[in-house]
Amino acid sequence: MHELGVVNTTIQRPDPNDVAALSQYGSATIHEAMGRVGLMQPYLRPAYQGAKLCGPAVTALLQPGDNWMMHVAAEQLTDGDVVVAACTTASDAGFFGDLLATSFRARGGAGLVIDGGVRDVADLEQMHFPVFAKAIHARGTVKETLGSVNIPVVCAGEVVNPGDVVVADADGVVVVPREQVAEVAEAAQAREAKEVGVRGRLAAGELGLDVYGMREKLAAKGLQYRQ
Amino acid sequence: MHELGVVNTTIQRPDPNDVAALSQYGSATIHEAMGRVGLMQPYLRPAYQGAKLCGPAVTALLQPGDNWMMHVAAEQLTDGDVVVAACTTASDAGFFGDLLATSFRARGGAGLVIDGGVRDVADLEQMHFPVFAKAIHARGTVKETLGSVNIPVVCAGEVVNPGDVVVADADGVVVVPREQVAEVAEAAQAREAKEVGVRGRLAAGELGLDVYGMREKLAAKGLQYRQ
Amino acid sequence: MHELGVVNTTIQRPDPNDVAALSQYGSATIHEAMGRVGLMQPYLRPAYQGAKLCGPAVTALLQPGDNWMMHVAAEQLTDGDVVVAACTTASDAGFFGDLLATSFRARGGAGLVIDGGVRDVADLEQMHFPVFAKAIHARGTVKETLGSVNIPVVCAGEVVNPGDVVVADADGVVVVPREQVAEVAEAAQAREAKEVGVRGRLAAGELGLDVYGMREKLAAKGLQYRQ
Amino acid sequence: MHELGVVNTTIQRPDPNDVAALSQYGSATIHEAMGRVGLMQPYLRPAYQGAKLCGPAVTALLQPGDNWMMHVAAEQLTDGDVVVAACTTASDAGFFGDLLATSFRARGGAGLVIDGGVRDVADLEQMHFPVFAKAIHARGTVKETLGSVNIPVVCAGEVVNPGDVVVADADGVVVVPREQVAEVAEAAQAREAKEVGVRGRLAAGELGLDVYGMREKLAAKGLQYRQ
Amino acid sequence: MHELGVVNTTIQRPDPNDVAALSQYGSATIHEAMGRVGLMQPYLRPAYQGAKLCGPAVTALLQPGDNWMMHVAAEQLTDGDVVVAACTTASDAGFFGDLLATSFRARGGAGLVIDGGVRDVADLEQMHFPVFAKAIHARGTVKETLGSVNIPVVCAGEVVNPGDVVVADADGVVVVPREQVAEVAEAAQAREAKEVGVRGRLAAGELGLDVYGMREKLAAKGLQYRQ
Amino acid sequence: MHELGVVNTTIQRPDPNDVAALSQYGSATIHEAMGRVGLMQPYLRPAYQGAKLCGPAVTALLQPGDNWMMHVAAEQLTDGDVVVAACTTASDAGFFGDLLATSFRARGGAGLVIDGGVRDVADLEQMHFPVFAKAIHARGTVKETLGSVNIPVVCAGEVVNPGDVVVADADGVVVVPREQVAEVAEAAQAREAKEVGVRGRLAAGELGLDVYGMREKLAAKGLQYRQ
Repeated sequence: MHELGVVNTTIQRPDPNDVAALSQYGSATIHEAMGRVGLMQPYLRPAYQGAKLCGPAVTALLQPGDNWMMHVAAEQLTDGDVVVAACTTASDAGFFGDLLATSFRARGGAGLVIDGGVRDVADLEQMHFPVFAKAIHARGTVKETLGSVNIPVVCAGEVVNPGDVVVADADGVVVVPREQVAEVAEAAQAREAKEVGVRGRLAAGELGLDVYGMREKLAAKGLQYRQ
Repeated sequence: MHELGVVNTTIQRPDPNDVAALSQYGSATIHEAMGRVGLMQPYLRPAYQGAKLCGPAVTALLQPGDNWMMHVAAEQLTDGDVVVAACTTASDAGFFGDLLATSFRARGGAGLVIDGGVRDVADLEQMHFPVFAKAIHARGTVKETLGSVNIPVVCAGEVVNPGDVVVADADGVVVVPREQVAEVAEAAQAREAKEVGVRGRLAAGELGLDVYGMREKLAAKGLQYRQ
Repeated sequence: MHELGVVNTTIQRPDPNDVAALSQYGSATIHEAMGRVGLMQPYLRPAYQGAKLCGPAVTALLQPGDNWMMHVAAEQLTDGDVVVAACTTASDAGFFGDLLATSFRARGGAGLVIDGGVRDVADLEQMHFPVFAKAIHARGTVKETLGSVNIPVVCAGEVVNPGDVVVADADGVVVVPREQVAEVAEAAQAREAKEVGVRGRLAAGELGLDVYGMREKLAAKGLQYRQ
Repeated sequence: MHELGVVNTTIQRPDPNDVAALSQYGSATIHEAMGRVGLMQPYLRPAYQGAKLCGPAVTALLQPGDNWMMHVAAEQLTDGDVVVAACTTASDAGFFGDLLATSFRARGGAGLVIDGGVRDVADLEQMHFPVFAKAIHARGTVKETLGSVNIPVVCAGEVVNPGDVVVADADGVVVVPREQVAEVAEAAQAREAKEVGVRGRLAAGELGLDVYGMREKLAAKGLQYRQ
Repeated sequence: MHELGVVNTTIQRPDPNDVAALSQYGSATIHEAMGRVGLMQPYLRPAYQGAKLCGPAVTALLQPGDNWMMHVAAEQLTDGDVVVAACTTASDAGFFGDLLATSFRARGGAGLVIDGGVRDVADLEQMHFPVFAKAIHARGTVKETLGSVNIPVVCAGEVVNPGDVVVADADGVVVVPREQVAEVAEAAQAREAKEVGVRGRLAAGELGLDVYGMREKLAAKGLQYRQ
Repeated sequence: MHELGVVNTTIQRPDPNDVAALSQYGSATIHEAMGRVGLMQPYLRPAYQGAKLCGPAVTALLQPGDNWMMHVAAEQLTDGDVVVAACTTASDAGFFGDLLATSFRARGGAGLVIDGGVRDVADLEQMHFPVFAKAIHARGTVKETLGSVNIPVVCAGEVVNPGDVVVADADGVVVVPREQVAEVAEAAQAREAKEVGVRGRLAAGELGLDVYGMREKLAAKGLQYRQ
C-alpha cells in the first residue's frame, strides 16, 4: 500500500562509480545478469529513437491525469538522477513535456521513466533528454491531488525504491536494487566477456547446437530429424 | 528485484478476527477506506459470476507458461489462505484448473488471485472455488523453471507481501497490508455507516450537490447554468 | 470543440410515445433501420447480464478520474432520462456506483451509458439499474475540475445531443437523433415485420441464397462450386 | 494462400461415433491429449454463458464486414456440422445473428466458431445455439465480395480443414484433425481416467509435490526452503 | 447520426492567414490554448517520423474496408486542405497509399488524418506527404458502399466539421473549429510567450514549485516533507 | 494440428531467380497481385526503421518463452533463407537477439519474421539484419521444451510452409506459396506497370473518379452532390 502526501528528502544513492560501471551494459544483459528479474513491462518505449539512460531513481507516485508531484520531485534531484514516475491508477495523459524536462535537467536530472504519457517529444529529442513512457499524448494534466515522492513505487510491473538504479534503452527498462549495483555490473561484465567468445564462434559458422552442447539434451527429449 | 528459487515456510498472518471483520466490505469500499490505494489493475476479473474472496496471501512467483510453483505453494497453505500468483513476465497460459483447485481446497485454500490465465472455469464455478484471473485459457503449462513462494510479489500492479489480505469481488481486487487489517476494517465500517445516511437522503430525492455541499465550490470554479 | 463549465438546464426531449415505440426494438434492428449508422463502439458492455435501456439523453462531459459532473447531471434528470457520460480524455476510473445510481433513480433516471468505468456492479444488478460502461473498476474519482452538462458529446465514437434517444442492450448502444425517433421506430417496425416472414422461411429450411435471391449475383462475381 | 471464390461441395467428415466420443471431453483435456497443440487463441469467447459445441467443421472464409459467404456455407451443412468462419483480415463486425442461426439450425448446423463479431446474442441464448466469437457487435455487414467455403482456413491462429472437429466450451476452442478424432478421444479418455485417481488423492490432502513426485527435481534445480 | 451518400461541394474555410498563424504552434500548445479540448485520441500516429500538418478539413466518412469515398474527396480539395477520414465502424485496412497521395497532392491536398490504416508508408515519407493514421497495413480495400464527403464526422473521438482546422505533429492531432482559428492562434501565441519566461527561469534552476507558486497549496493539502 | 519434436531436413525451395524477381516488389503490391490474400496481421513490425527482406522460409514452431528451436533452425539454413518463427501460444518474450542474428547470418540467413518478441534491436540495426516481430522485449527465454522445425506453421494469422517465400517491408509481411513465386512476381510486375500510367495521370491532376471510371457506379448507388 502506497502512502500518499509524503516526500522523503533523504535517500541513499549507490556509489557513482558502480552506476558508471553498470551504465556500460544494456538492459537485456543486465536483466540476464540478475537471473532474469527486474525487467519492466515492454510497453514502456523510448520517446525518441536512440534514447538511453542509467541512474539512481528519484521516485514519484502520481495521481491519474495530475502531474503535481513531478514538480515536487524536481526539487529532490541531484546530478545523474532519473525520475521514475508511477501512477495510482493507469493514465495515459501527458504528464511531462519540455518545461519539466528543462527543469529536471537544470536540477541535474538525467532522464525519466514514466508509467504514463508524455508530450513535446520533438523537443525532448532536440534536448537529448531521454524519456521512456507508456504513451505519447498531448493531453494536459491538472495539479489538484497529492501523491508522494521518494517512496517505493510499482512502475510497469516492477518495484522501484528510491536510489535503485534504472537502466533503459531500445530493449526495455530494468531496475537494479541499490545494494546490488556493483555486483550486477560485475555479473554483466562476466556475461559480456563470455558472449564475446561465443559470438566469435557463431560468426565463424559454428552452431549454437554445438557451442552450447545442446544436441544430447534435444535427443533425450526425443527430437527427430527427418529427411 | 525478486529472488528466485526460494520458499519461505514461516509467514505472519493477521488476526483471523480482523480478516473476518474486513471480509464484510467490498473492494471499492476498502480501497476508499485506505485513501484510494491498494487496488490491482482492473483486468483481473472473476473466473465466474459471483466469485468473492477475502484472506491472507500465500504468494507465488511463477515463470511464464510454467505452473510448478503453484504445487509448491499448495504445501504452504493453512485454513483461509488465498494464493496470490504473479509472473516474472506477462503470460496468459492456463496455470490453474480443477486439480489444483481440489488440492488448494483440501489444504485450506480459500481462493486464487492470479496475474495470468486459468482453465476448467466451469468446474471452478461448480466447486464454488473463487478465482480472479487475467485470462481464461485452456493452454497447459510446463514444470521446468524455478520461481519462488512467499516472497513479496507484484500482482496486477500492486505489491503483495505474504500475509497481506486480499479482498476480491465483482468490482476488483484490493490488497490490505497485514499490519493494517484491523484499522482498515474499521475505516471501511465508518465509511459504510456514513454512506447509509447519504444513501437515504439520495433515495429521498435530495441531490448530491446539496448532500455534499458542492454548489459553492462549483460556482467558485465558474460553472454556468444556462436556460 | 467542447465547451467546459456549462450546464444547459433546458433541453428538448422527444415525444414519450415515440420513445416507447422505439423501446420495443433492439440496438441491432435500430442501427439497421437507420441505414447502419448511430452505433457506439462495441467496447461498451452491460455492467450486468440482461441490462437494457431506452430513453432521452442527459449528457455529461467528465474530466478524467473526476465524476463531479455526474452530480450536476443528476439535477437535470426527469422521468425516463438516461445519462450519457463522455470524458475529455480516455479514463477507466469508477465514475459511478450505487450511491449515484440511487440518486439518479430517485430523480427519474432510467440508466447510464458511460465511456468510462463504473463500480458497485453487484448493487447495480440488485437495483436493476441498467448501466453500459467501458470498464468495471473500483477506483474512486475526485471532484476538482469542471466539465459540462447537456452539451453535445462524443461517447464511444458517436455524437450524442441532449434529448437524443439511446437504446442499449446485449448487442450494443445506438443513438437516435431526437427529431428522428418516430421515423426510426417505424423503420424498425417495418424491418422486424419483414424479418418475420424471412425467419419463417429460413426456419422451414429455405436458404438465404434463395430467400434473398443471391445466386445470380454470386455467379456473376464468379463463385465456383466444386465437387 | 487462400483461394477465393470457391465452394467445395464434397468434404469428408469423421465417423459420427468418434465425434460423439470426443464430445464427452472439454477443450482443455483434448488440447492436452493432443500434446498441447490445436488450441485457438483465447480471445474467442462464448456468446452466452454455458455455450458448448462439438462437431465437424464446414469452413467459411469471409471478407471484412461482409457476411455473404455465411449464406453460401448454410447450404453445405449437414446434421451436426459446426461452421468455422475466418476472415481475410481482422474484422469485428456482426457477421451473424438470429436469422442466420435460424437458417443454420434448420439445415442441421450445431453451432458457430467465428474469428469476428456476432449480434442478437440474447436470441442466440434463447435458441440455445452455441456461438464462439471474437466480439459482440450490432454492426451490420454487406454482401459484395467473394470469399470461399470449405477450404482450409486459419481461425484465431489455428488451421481448420473442412471436416476437422472443433470442440468449444468455457475454456476455449480446440481443433482436432479429421483423421485423429478417434485417437484423440481415446487419449482424452485415458487422461481423464488418470486424473480421477489424482483428483481423489489431492482431495484427500495429498500434495501434487508427492503425487507427481516433484520434490527431487525441485531440489535438483536448487529450490531452497527457509523458515 | 451520419447521413450517407452525400457530398457537400460548398464548404466554408477559415481565413488562410489565420491558418498560417495557427500553423506555428504545436498540437499540445493549441490543445491547452483551447482549454484542454479538441484533442483526438492518442492512437493516431504519424506514418513516418517528422510528419506535420495544419490545414482546413475536407471530411470523408468511409465504410469499413472500403476507400471509395477517398476518391470522391479528392475532387473536393483546394490548396492546403487536409482530408480527415472517419469510418462508420472501426477498420484498420489500408485505405490510402501512394496513388491517392499523388492524387491528393496534385489537387492541392496537404495531408491526411485517418481513423484507419494506410500503406506505402516508405513512399509517403519520400513524397513528404504527411499522414496520421491508426495503423499501417498493406491490406487493400474495395469500392462498393457509399459513405459521404464533407459532412460532420467523428474522427478518433473528436467531431470534425468541414472547414475546421486540424493540426497534427509528433504529439497528436487537435481540431480547431473554423470560427475560432484566429482566436486560438492568439491564445497559443500568448501561451508560448508566457512559457518563454517560465522556461528561462526553469533552465536557470528555479523550481516549478516557486515559479508557479505551488508550495502553499501543497502544504494546505497536507504534503509532508520527511528527512 | 502441429506435430512437435520434428525437424525436416529436406525442404524444397523456389527458383532463386523467381525469388530475385519477387524481391523487387513491396508487400502491398504482392498482396494485391495475389488477389488480396497472404498478408500477415499488421502487428508484425520492423525491429528497426528501413528493415526489408525477401526469401524462402525455414519455419520454426517455438514453445512460449522458449527459443530452443531457433538454434535447431540455424542448422537448416542455406543462403538467402528467412526464418519464420511461430509459437504454440502467444508469447512476447525476447526469443532472438544479436547472438542468434550472428549465427543465422553466418549460416546464410537473410532475416527473421517472428510471431513473438526480439531484443538487442540496436545491434540488429547495426548489423543490418532485418527482423519483423510482434514485440521488442529484453526478456530472456529458456531451452526446455521441444517444438519443431520445417513443418507448416501459422505465423500472425497466415500459414507458412517451408520453402514459401516471405516478403516484408514497412507495410507488412506477405507469404507467397512456393509454387506461385514466378506467377506472383509477374502479376506484381503487371500491376506496377499499370500503376505507372495511373500515377502519371493522377499526378497531372486527373481524378481517380475519371481514371477508374467510378462516376457512373457512384451515381447508380445514389451518391448525391449538394452545393
